[in-house]
Amino acid sequence: MSPLPGSQLLGEIREQPAALIRLLEHEPEFAAVARRLRDNGPGAVRLVGHGSSDNAASYGVYAFGLLPGWTALRDSISLSVYYGAELDLARSCVLALSQSGRTPDVVEYAQKARRQGALTVALTNDASSALAEACEIVLPLGAGTERSVAATKTYTTQVAALALLAGCAAGEGPRLAAGIRTTAELMAELLPELEARVSELAVALAFVGRMFVIGRGPEYATAREISLKLLETCRVAAEPLTTTDLAHGPVAALDGLFPVWAIASDVAGLAAVREAAAAVRAAGATLIASGTAAAEIPGAAYTLAVPAPPIALLAPLLSVVPGQMLAWALAQAKGLDADRPAGLSKVTLAL
Amino acid sequence: MSPLPGSQLLGEIREQPAALIRLLEHEPEFAAVARRLRDNGPGAVRLVGHGSSDNAASYGVYAFGLLPGWTALRDSISLSVYYGAELDLARSCVLALSQSGRTPDVVEYAQKARRQGALTVALTNDASSALAEACEIVLPLGAGTERSVAATKTYTTQVAALALLAGCAAGEGPRLAAGIRTTAELMAELLPELEARVSELAVALAFVGRMFVIGRGPEYATAREISLKLLETCRVAAEPLTTTDLAHGPVAALDGLFPVWAIASDVAGLAAVREAAAAVRAAGATLIASGTAAAEIPGAAYTLAVPAPPIALLAPLLSVVPGQMLAWALAQAKGLDADRPAGLSKVTLAL
Repeated sequence: MSPLPGSQLLGEIREQPAALIRLLEHEPEFAAVARRLRDNGPGAVRLVGHGSSDNAASYGVYAFGLLPGWTALRDSISLSVYYGAELDLARSCVLALSQSGRTPDVVEYAQKARRQGALTVALTNDASSALAEACEIVLPLGAGTERSVAATKTYTTQVAALALLAGCAAGEGPRLAAGIRTTAELMAELLPELEARVSELAVALAFVGRMFVIGRGPEYATAREISLKLLETCRVAAEPLTTTDLAHGPVAALDGLFPVWAIASDVAGLAAVREAAAAVRAAGATLIASGTAAAEIPGAAYTLAVPAPPIALLAPLLSVVPGQMLAWALAQAKGLDADRPAGLSKVTLAL
Repeated sequence: MSPLPGSQLLGEIREQPAALIRLLEHEPEFAAVARRLRDNGPGAVRLVGHGSSDNAASYGVYAFGLLPGWTALRDSISLSVYYGAELDLARSCVLALSQSGRTPDVVEYAQKARRQGALTVALTNDASSALAEACEIVLPLGAGTERSVAATKTYTTQVAALALLAGCAAGEGPRLAAGIRTTAELMAELLPELEARVSELAVALAFVGRMFVIGRGPEYATAREISLKLLETCRVAAEPLTTTDLAHGPVAALDGLFPVWAIASDVAGLAAVREAAAAVRAAGATLIASGTAAAEIPGAAYTLAVPAPPIALLAPLLSVVPGQMLAWALAQAKGLDADRPAGLSKVTLAL
């Protein structure tokens, strides 16, 4: 018997707290890899991945920038693999992110980077995959088999893994591990409440064709990931923007049929999100607010607040959950099967 | 008397070949700065800017990666300025891109990077601006005053400036300068032909609310810039995607009301763009093809080909022009004033 449409996605959303706790069993391995990175003296941490993995990489830029003070970048796979650039990677470290470990050009990027002198680390659910083989070091994600095409528990586990690794690199591994544990407990409390609340919003959004999702700093990763969930499961043209991006052009496209989802969590991002929200309201667009500071965004028609984690940098683990849950509910409201979106497969082998 | 709506934008689109030729007068200054960068031994070239300047930065990643083989990244202004990350920038070079030189957080980023040991270079139209003051070195863009809110000649001049600087860094300054000169001549021939042709496409697109614009490699910058023009002047929710991005989720959102603009120029990108175009057609979406290889994208309802420049890496200078011209024509078809989009100003001072 075929499962109920969307039931795999919902099941995996619910599994996330347990997946985060499982990740923490690997803390000693993360600490050991962080020591290798420190000894290597990374000129740059090169994060590579596609889709949700690339969204997690956006978070990694902040985790490494703010914890050990290292430069991390979402490196261009295309520049190296398809355009053949020959870069000096001797002082670089590569973190290759892939749920399956089978994404062909991520594997090829890792192989080439290793030949060019980079310290290569695979972060994957499958420690026997081609990516694990291609890299010098493997860090298990341990999220467990993910069946739904739309990634959820893999994404949050990747975010936590990057926070943990960056924390270890800064000599703060135990603090980050404890923070992730508490955050997982908060998420477990949040999930049933959100599941009960999203149906109302799903009905209201059933006719929306386009949307902006805005976030600043570490929450830009959340904006990207929520947009991707809405695109792939609900056929909404949701575009992620930083608050700065919005002000530099896209704000001119807003009108009453163009809702904006604003995510605000930390103090450093709040002023900009509030200012963006005011511009959105002035354009007559409907505002949805989420994040730990959702209540501080005025003018929102819908508010999906999440609790504050013990470490502000961990907020994205919680603030993405309303987006995942809404994607599930909205797909149901639109009669779409969130587990099997048209034209997608779990492992993307295309160019 | 107030000028005809869109006439400033059109005038500045037409000025682009002359602006590119003016840039070449500064070749000796570019060569001198490239020597400084080489002596500095850049661990990373950090490109910073917002809006169109950030789109030009996407091109810079390829120009520096493919010509001198240097790592260039679009650095996070927010991480440094709003989140206070303290990174070691001693081996870095900063290229700060701003038409006006007055964007507050770009200025603040440059000041901070200079204190942290980076070699700072301002690329701006205004050599007496705050940004020019903040940086150790100033490279004039020389695009001339730009009045339309939507940048056009500033963008193409920035792209050419990055190509010229990267070329000088690779010891190929004269080759790149000659290539830019020929490309400017090709652009001068292309412009009147495009101006005559875009009206037909503008009428066909007048009811489009959302669009994807896809490009790979150096043409991803073009996809970003065309999207921004359509957003800010025509209120179309146009989202730029790499061909890989499209396959990893957004393809599921396509349908007959969701056109896709595909840009193909170089051989390295063509196979992926053709594959993406086939997926777009399979989803029933209308396809618009542009770039030097536009004719090689099957199934396009509209084709806006541009001539091939003498150096493949310079193709983005030409392939952006159909998008600029269409933005002008589509704004006219929709009764919008492309010179003064609602809610935008030429210098964005918002957070």
